[in-house]
Amino acid sequence: MQSIGFVGLGAIGTPMAQNLVKAGFRVRAYDVRPEAVSALAGAGARGAASAREAAEGADLLILMVVNAAQAEQVLFADGAAEALPAGGTVALMSTCPPAAVANLAARVDALGRGFVDAPVSGGVAGARAATLSIMAAAPAVLLDRVRPAFAALGDKIFHVGERPGQGAAIKTVNQLLCGVHIAAAAEALALASRMGVDPAVALRILSGSSAASWMLNDRGPRMLEDKPELTSAVDIFVKDLSIVMEAGREAKAPLPLASAAHQLFLATSGRGEGGADDSQVIRTYRAMTGDG
Amino acid sequence: MQSIGFVGLGAIGTPMAQNLVKAGFRVRAYDVRPEAVSALAGAGARGAASAREAAEGADLLILMVVNAAQAEQVLFADGAAEALPAGGTVALMSTCPPAAVANLAARVDALGRGFVDAPVSGGVAGARAATLSIMAAAPAVLLDRVRPAFAALGDKIFHVGERPGQGAAIKTVNQLLCGVHIAAAAEALALASRMGVDPAVALRILSGSSAASWMLNDRGPRMLEDKPELTSAVDIFVKDLSIVMEAGREAKAPLPLASAAHQLFLATSGRGEGGADDSQVIRTYRAMTGDG
Repeated sequence: MQSIGFVGLGAIGTPMAQNLVKAGFRVRAYDVRPEAVSALAGAGARGAASAREAAEGADLLILMVVNAAQAEQVLFADGAAEALPAGGTVALMSTCPPAAVANLAARVDALGRGFVDAPVSGGVAGARAATLSIMAAAPAVLLDRVRPAFAALGDKIFHVGERPGQGAAIKTVNQLLCGVHIAAAAEALALASRMGVDPAVALRILSGSSAASWMLNDRGPRMLEDKPELTSAVDIFVKDLSIVMEAGREAKAPLPLASAAHQLFLATSGRGEGGADDSQVIRTYRAMTGDG
Repeated sequence: MQSIGFVGLGAIGTPMAQNLVKAGFRVRAYDVRPEAVSALAGAGARGAASAREAAEGADLLILMVVNAAQAEQVLFADGAAEALPAGGTVALMSTCPPAAVANLAARVDALGRGFVDAPVSGGVAGARAATLSIMAAAPAVLLDRVRPAFAALGDKIFHVGERPGQGAAIKTVNQLLCGVHIAAAAEALALASRMGVDPAVALRILSGSSAASWMLNDRGPRMLEDKPELTSAVDIFVKDLSIVMEAGREAKAPLPLASAAHQLFLATSGRGEGGADDSQVIRTYRAMTGDG
């Protein structure tokens, strides 16, 4: 496999496409924002005028779009699935609800193209460093076909199951934990402040104790800064925890913690802070107690 | 300082007292259960017939009792604070609400004895290995006086503030995170199962991702076992999250995640499983969906 169509050049998609170029793949890229396509064309990829054009002649079509609705638009309304040569493969790498992914996979399969459900974790930093985790669900033979491309994007490729939707399911569970852990870190540090304890001292102790989480250690310091750097926006978790709750409804699984965390991110976004770093969900705690 | 009175010989108190003996301190120990006193007397400590007797002539009186009410009973109703020589120090190492600790400290101070608020984390394993974390709040001169004893109990001694209650506050925040993280791990693994994903595969991936927490990695495997070993009981978190909620009420700080987690541990205990390993809060998710 040498030729890859790439649709969705956002904060994560762009460095992923660049890494494919660096690894020697011929990349034809498309995004609804022409400036994103031009920027990538400068980095050695060819630009495409449409998602359909990016798919034409490609062995693999990677989608890193915002959500399942966009993936459906690209694949079917825009005709990218049909434009992909027979025997070509679609890899959907966005975070989408498991049921929606299973549905898209069935429709792509009906057109005679392969489908690999392959969401990622690791964020912008992981995308840039090609150290993403890829949670792939597809028949093994299909995964093996796209593995060289995945190896240029991440360093942890998990084959989580044969059925598309299972990768999305693991990513959903991943986001449940990430979202709850960020909100819990905010709840903990806000409580420390209310009790008259220096939250920086609390964070230093908690980061090295059984209270630690990857998110506490990563987001905690930014919760205590006045103007924290933006690494991932509040609205990403508004969206991802919506997917978690949708997956829970679909599976008839009650999710009291994810539900509470979702409300906290939603409140943050509702105050107009959806574009702030997701660590700033702590501001909702401060808003509730008037410590803002 | 050479002579230590020790009250409260439970699962954590007993190995702590043993470590003090090993470090060369003269230990006089008391517990309401005479068999616990006899066991420790066999290990080189002297037994006492009452808390008051344990305190008599001691430089330091360590309390590792169940809660603040027991500490109050020991110190005032049983007269241990008064029995402690003038210039002696009380170290309260149990997990108690910050306001209750501040109150006990003021009453001990009024009697002319020192008070060090010094809750621990690290559990039974940390107590045995003398690797507890100790979150101490007291004037520095008082902490320095008891530091040799603390060094025989733990390897991380944090001086978190000058005011008793601040150590309890940090421990409260610690338990908030631990309790929420355990319940979140249960919610995540239960959702994985409901979505038809192997929870063991999910756990393996999540443990190494941004979804990781100390508790996910420690309790997660036991959530998937039929008959998990008991390391810390559900009822400990029923109690500790009660302390968290009490501290939140006291500080007028809303704690939506801790509150939801508390309800889940309470439900587990309510089904008669309060003595089970705390990982078994996952059974409440299974009970809710009928997957028990």
